[in-house]
Amino acid sequence: MDLNEEALNLHKKLKGKIYTGLRGEVTPDTLKLFYSPGVAEASRYATDNAKKLKEVAWTNNTVAIVSDGSAVLGLGDIGPEGAMPVMEGKAMLFKHFADVDAVPIVLDVHDTEEIISAVKAIAPSFGGINLEDISAPKCFEIEERLKAELDMPIMHDDQHGTAIVTLAGLINAARVTGKEIKDMKIVLVGAGAAGIAIAKLLHKYAQPRIFAVDSKGIISANRTDLNEEKKKLLEFSNRSNIDGSLENAVEGADVFIGVSKAGLLSAAMVKSMDKNPVIFALANPTPEIMPDIAKEAGASIIATGRSDFPNQVNNALGFPGIFRGALDNGVTKITDDHKVAAAEALAALVENPTADKIVPNPFDEGVVEAVASSIK
Amino acid sequence: MDLNEEALNLHKKLKGKIYTGLRGEVTPDTLKLFYSPGVAEASRYATDNAKKLKEVAWTNNTVAIVSDGSAVLGLGDIGPEGAMPVMEGKAMLFKHFADVDAVPIVLDVHDTEEIISAVKAIAPSFGGINLEDISAPKCFEIEERLKAELDMPIMHDDQHGTAIVTLAGLINAARVTGKEIKDMKIVLVGAGAAGIAIAKLLHKYAQPRIFAVDSKGIISANRTDLNEEKKKLLEFSNRSNIDGSLENAVEGADVFIGVSKAGLLSAAMVKSMDKNPVIFALANPTPEIMPDIAKEAGASIIATGRSDFPNQVNNALGFPGIFRGALDNGVTKITDDHKVAAAEALAALVENPTADKIVPNPFDEGVVEAVASSIK
Repeated sequence: MDLNEEALNLHKKLKGKIYTGLRGEVTPDTLKLFYSPGVAEASRYATDNAKKLKEVAWTNNTVAIVSDGSAVLGLGDIGPEGAMPVMEGKAMLFKHFADVDAVPIVLDVHDTEEIISAVKAIAPSFGGINLEDISAPKCFEIEERLKAELDMPIMHDDQHGTAIVTLAGLINAARVTGKEIKDMKIVLVGAGAAGIAIAKLLHKYAQPRIFAVDSKGIISANRTDLNEEKKKLLEFSNRSNIDGSLENAVEGADVFIGVSKAGLLSAAMVKSMDKNPVIFALANPTPEIMPDIAKEAGASIIATGRSDFPNQVNNALGFPGIFRGALDNGVTKITDDHKVAAAEALAALVENPTADKIVPNPFDEGVVEAVASSIK
Repeated sequence: MDLNEEALNLHKKLKGKIYTGLRGEVTPDTLKLFYSPGVAEASRYATDNAKKLKEVAWTNNTVAIVSDGSAVLGLGDIGPEGAMPVMEGKAMLFKHFADVDAVPIVLDVHDTEEIISAVKAIAPSFGGINLEDISAPKCFEIEERLKAELDMPIMHDDQHGTAIVTLAGLINAARVTGKEIKDMKIVLVGAGAAGIAIAKLLHKYAQPRIFAVDSKGIISANRTDLNEEKKKLLEFSNRSNIDGSLENAVEGADVFIGVSKAGLLSAAMVKSMDKNPVIFALANPTPEIMPDIAKEAGASIIATGRSDFPNQVNNALGFPGIFRGALDNGVTKITDDHKVAAAEALAALVENPTADKIVPNPFDEGVVEAVASSIK
C-alpha cells in the first residue's frame, strides 16, 4: 500500500483528527456553574474585555488556523473543503507539540476584503490567528491588514514559518561551511509567499547579496511584469540589476534556496556555484534537485522539505513554539525581531551542526520551549 | 460562598471549559499520514465536496455555536467577549450529552447582513450551526436566510430549543390536567425570540387559542407599534382581536407561558384563570411567579427554567439530541415537523406524567437518543 492510500484509509477510519474534550465533569451540580445561571458571572466579568476573558475562557490557549483553500500544499486552489484535512492536521501538530488548542477554520470567501472581514468577525473567539495556504499576492495584504487591525498574534505560516526555519538552517549551514551569511550570494527561486518572506528575513538578518528568481527569470528593475511584493524585493535584492535566467543567477552563488518546482536545479548548475555550495531544495513533495544528485555535483549541504532525507526544513519546527510563546507571553505582534530570535533559538538547539544536521527535528526535546521563549 | 462567586472561581481555576484532543498519536511515522505529504490525498478526495469531507474530517461531528453577544442570558447586549463563557458552556453540554464536537464562535459584527456573511464564510468548517443569544428581531431573518442559503442543519436555539421543550412539557401537562391542547386558551408573555417560536410551534401542533402579550399589552391588529414578526403572530393569535393588559388576557386562560420578566404574574391573576391552570414561568433566573405562590393561588402545574424546582424547561433537553440526529441522519433542514417530533419524543420519555414531572431531566438516560431519532 502506498503512502497516499495509507493516509486516505487512516483518514476514513478516524473520521477526523481532533475532537473537543471537557476540562471539567458535567453533573447536575457543576451544570449550574458551567452554564446558566452561574456562567453569567463569568460573562459579566469578561464583558468587552479580551484580557479578562482569557482568565475565564479557552481564548488564552486557542489559535484559529484559517485558510480559504487557495494555495493548499502543492495542490493549489482546492477550496475550503479540500483545505480542511490539512488544517485539521495542523491543529494536531499545534496540540501535540505545543499544547495549543487550535481550531481549523476554512473559508468560503476568497476575495481579500471578504477574508479580512471574516477573520475580524470571528477574532474574539480566539487567542491568535494562524493564516495558512492563502495564495500570493493576496496573502501579503491580508496578513498586514489583520496585524494592523487586530490586537492579537497573527502569522501567515507559509511565509514566516518557512522563513524562520530556513534562516535557522542557513545559520548552521554557515557554521558548517565556514562562510558568513553577510558575505554570501544567495539565489532564491520562487517569489510567492514563502520566497518573499525568506528574502525579507535573510535581508533583515545579515544583508547578504540576494537574487530572487521567478518563472520568468531574475527579478530586476527592467521587468515590467512585477507585482507590488516583487517590486519591493528590489529595494534590497539584485542591487547590480542584472537580468537573466536561473542558470545565470546561480553561477558563483554560495546558496540556492528553492521554494518553487520539482527538478528546476540541474547538476550542471550546482557545479557552477561557488565552492561548498549549500542547497535548500524545499519544493514539496519533489525537491528542485534530488539530494544524491546535488551531492554528486559537489553540494556541501542539502536540505529539503522531506522527512526521508537529512535536514528537513519543516514548518512544524516553528509555528507551535511561536504561538505558544505569543500566547504565554502576551505578545500581540509577531515582529521581524521575533522571527530572527526564533531562528537563532532553533539553530542553537543543534550543538554541533554537521552537513547532515543543520536543523533540529520537530520531535527533539526542547524545540517548542526554545522557540516559545524567543517570542516575548 | 454564593453560586456566582463559586462559578467565577471555577472559571478562573480551569481557564477554559473545553480543549482540543487528538484522535491519533502524532509520531514521526503518523506525521506523514496526518500531515504533509499523506494528507494531500485526503484533501484531493474532499475537494469541493462537503459530503466526502465528512468521511475524512471532523466536520461530520462539529457544530459551531455562533453568537454576536447581543442577547446573552438575562444580561442583554454584552458583546462577543461577554458571550464566550456561555457559548463555551454550551459546547460542554453538546459534548457531554451528545458527543458533538462544538466550537464556540463569538462574532465582532452585529448587523444582520454582517452576521449572515460571517456565518456563511466559515460554514464549510462545520457540520451544523447553532445560533445562540442573538437579539430579536434580527435573529429571525438571520436564521431564515442562513437556512435558505446553506445546505446544513441550522437552528437558533433560543427560539426552537425553548419551543420544543415547552411543547413537550405542555403535552404532558395536558395529560395530567385532562385537557386537550387544541381546546386550550394559552397566554404567552414575551414576544421575543423564544415567545414567537413557542407561539408558532403550539399553533403548528394543535391550533389552540393563543394570546400573545408584550410589554405594551395584548398583541392585536389595533396596535401600530408591531415589528414584522409580531404582526405575523396575528395570522393565528388573538383571532377575536381583543385589546388589553396581561391581566385581561389571563382571565379564563388554561395556560400561562412566560418568557419575559421576573414577577409579572400575580397570585390574583392565577386565581382568575380557568380551573387547573398550568403555569410555565420560564424567566431566568427569577420566574414570572414563584412556584409556591402559584401553587397557593391554585396552579395545577408549574414549570420554570430552574433546576431547583420541579419541571425544569431546559434547552439542554433539546439541542444536543437535535444536532446529534441531524448530523447522524444527514438532515440539512430542521423543519417544524422535526420540532414537533422532538417534543413528542421528549414528552413520551415521561411514562407517567404527574404535576411534578412533565419533562425528563437532561441527565436521564435515553434523552439524546430519543430526540436524535426524531430528527430524520
